Amino acid sequence: MRLGAIEAGGTKMVCAVGDENGNIFEQVKFPTLMPEETMAKIVGYFSDKEISAVGVAAFGPVGIDKKHPNYGKLLETTKVEWKNFDLLGSLKGLNVPMNIETDVGGSCIGEAWKGAAKGLDNVVYVTVGTGIGAGIMVNGKIVHGMLHPEAGHIRINKRSTDSCDSVCCYHENCVEGLASGTAIRARWSLPAEELLDREEVWELEADYIAQALANYIMVVSPQKIILGGGVMHVEKLFPLIREKTKQYINGYLVADELEDMDSYIVKAGLGDDQGIVGCLKLAADCLGRT
Amino acid sequence: MRLGAIEAGGTKMVCAVGDENGNIFEQVKFPTLMPEETMAKIVGYFSDKEISAVGVAAFGPVGIDKKHPNYGKLLETTKVEWKNFDLLGSLKGLNVPMNIETDVGGSCIGEAWKGAAKGLDNVVYVTVGTGIGAGIMVNGKIVHGMLHPEAGHIRINKRSTDSCDSVCCYHENCVEGLASGTAIRARWSLPAEELLDREEVWELEADYIAQALANYIMVVSPQKIILGGGVMHVEKLFPLIREKTKQYINGYLVADELEDMDSYIVKAGLGDDQGIVGCLKLAADCLGRT
Repeated sequence: MRLGAIEAGGTKMVCAVGDENGNIFEQVKFPTLMPEETMAKIVGYFSDKEISAVGVAAFGPVGIDKKHPNYGKLLETTKVEWKNFDLLGSLKGLNVPMNIETDVGGSCIGEAWKGAAKGLDNVVYVTVGTGIGAGIMVNGKIVHGMLHPEAGHIRINKRSTDSCDSVCCYHENCVEGLASGTAIRARWSLPAEELLDREEVWELEADYIAQALANYIMVVSPQKIILGGGVMHVEKLFPLIREKTKQYINGYLVADELEDMDSYIVKAGLGDDQGIVGCLKLAADCLGRT
Repeated sequence: MRLGAIEAGGTKMVCAVGDENGNIFEQVKFPTLMPEETMAKIVGYFSDKEISAVGVAAFGPVGIDKKHPNYGKLLETTKVEWKNFDLLGSLKGLNVPMNIETDVGGSCIGEAWKGAAKGLDNVVYVTVGTGIGAGIMVNGKIVHGMLHPEAGHIRINKRSTDSCDSVCCYHENCVEGLASGTAIRARWSLPAEELLDREEVWELEADYIAQALANYIMVVSPQKIILGGGVMHVEKLFPLIREKTKQYINGYLVADELEDMDSYIVKAGLGDDQGIVGCLKLAADCLGRT
């Protein structure tokens, strides 16, 4: 079976053809320009690929509730040209069943299906990049709810010695505003890759991320947390985050998983392909339902 | 069909007989004393009630993962006599199918089945009493995960003018430590019922609870939040909590549910019976599976 996968990001669109086992046969990228021209390229790419279904993982906020009129549409996104754009509708010309998730939801599905959380039903996938977001799986299904999680916007405690303002224009102390790649650059006036030997940068960064993770653990009790995104390419963050998360829990939770933090908080298992692999699962799922 | 329900609390055990429609026929209470004598009374009570199944909602932490060896047992509870006690095992003499949840999980099930969240699949039930806890339903199922949520222990921002230490011995600024009934009493040296006309008490209390709710919303995106427990009998907390929660979200989330905060953050619909009603659902469910 040949399946289509579209990882719709704010700067690029990754399109791939693969199968129901998560194999990727080919992959291309298009820049995210104006909606109509971008989507026309994508439809053109898939037109001769003989795919049976398409899975989409999209930047957001995006309507993912099949029962809601906004299903498949981009909502109040900061990319103004894309606001209210009917993403799934623009793919109707492919004439195949479709399924859509948030970008982080797609990545979480990919990692739980074929990656670092293979076989688990309760997983948090966090991306720390330009922004911070989380895809959350509970009892084997991605959390949607009223809208979908916006877990990068939980409040954390800002350190009193941190004089840098949040880069989130909505929240003065959410983890995205204080610990995203954008926040790192604003605070230290340099991109992450030029700050690698500055220990104070990563100690603070790990502290803020660990506060968020400790809260996710208290709320949804995941069996594993996967950290991806550009900032997490800084490998030394992992041991710092593990140690500080453990300190924030402070022995309150007793569970086998927390005995080995090295296998509880881990890096992504699929490199940069978890989103596309998740889309293949979404495509396969929607065939299963049709 | 006659079903048994046991709400196992740290100070009292509520036992009831009811049916698969949530009707309660009779209800009794026993004080929570030593495990063996307490459970013998409960088994005695049910022995002639001709019940077909039992649902239990228990104080915790408690093992609720059917696949784990600690299923049905109390874990690292502060009630030392009950630590590691096999709660479900002590009911085996009843010789009926059994099902167990956390106390707040049971209440969440009750409210989603017959109460204020009837018909919804994504619900957070928060109890603000001696402690703070939350039962969380996602996609129609209670969140378990690695252990179960301990959402009273999420970190919030302590106000700089609040000089009272957290009453949680694990966390210096979790919402339970700063906003439970125990915390109110420690801060103001009076129980809640003698502080009713002190506006500053409820303004601070509402602020701390709203911080927690805003975080729950960002993580699991519930369709409705239900507030129960002794402290929430202070009715004037509701409008304060709604207003502050909205302020903390600060327009970032656009969803129909948030347009009407009066119907988004509500009091419990089943008075004090949501736990017992949830237990009847648990009992009915386990018959459906057997």
